[in-house]
Amino acid sequence: MFTYQTSLQWNGGSQGTVAAAGRPDLTITSPSEFGGRDDAWNPELMLVAAVESCLLLTALSVAARQKLTLAGYASQATGHMEKTPEGLRFTGIEVAVQLKVNSPADAEKAQKLMAIAEKYCPVSNAVKCPVRVTCEVEGK
Amino acid sequence: MFTYQTSLQWNGGSQGTVAAAGRPDLTITSPSEFGGRDDAWNPELMLVAAVESCLLLTALSVAARQKLTLAGYASQATGHMEKTPEGLRFTGIEVAVQLKVNSPADAEKAQKLMAIAEKYCPVSNAVKCPVRVTCEVEGK
Repeated sequence: MFTYQTSLQWNGGSQGTVAAAGRPDLTITSPSEFGGRDDAWNPELMLVAAVESCLLLTALSVAARQKLTLAGYASQATGHMEKTPEGLRFTGIEVAVQLKVNSPADAEKAQKLMAIAEKYCPVSNAVKCPVRVTCEVEGK
Repeated sequence: MFTYQTSLQWNGGSQGTVAAAGRPDLTITSPSEFGGRDDAWNPELMLVAAVESCLLLTALSVAARQKLTLAGYASQATGHMEKTPEGLRFTGIEVAVQLKVNSPADAEKAQKLMAIAEKYCPVSNAVKCPVRVTCEVEGK
């Protein structure tokens, strides 16, 4: 069993400070469309960033086990939230990944990498809404 | 429909930088138990922080609608992740909330606040594992 602990202090208005031991404190607010600000992280962005960054780290772990050397990894992620009769709900998260590798043989392995990463990524697997991962591989 | 966009760049090793327009960049790594470091945020902590901070902001929104004045709000959250046959999976997130109010009448309202916030919180509702919220109210 692994545990992950955070703490939060409301600062008044729609702003708080979230902390985790040893890490820099983070200011969080509501998204501006819900009365907050666009210069601080909000919970919706943090959820999307958690999925996106967990996919990277899981992919790196899978690549290491497969002896696949990556020369680059970047991604862009978009979370969609909609009003439903039950309230606001996330309806999907899309992650577009760009991988760089050094050889055509690695490019072939890399094509399958993100599907495996998605299967094992604990944060992708923790969200109810569909997580759609697309991947472009640039080989040499 | 609301959209939340982030981008991620791998920095080598088990480290990346996650960005969202206008917000400070965040360094993310694997948790140290998976080869990363304990001085930067990891995806697991970010998921827990997203749930915890969304509960605060949803509670503030519900309180405003109920004309309930809060004098203080703090919380601590713990996410549990376990090895399962399918890989690492989140099995539960606990959030302990401490509310402060200014009158016995508000204390009564505040007792019900977190149950309503939990029902409407989009991030709590986006995770598959149980989110257990407990709440202590300190009134005057």
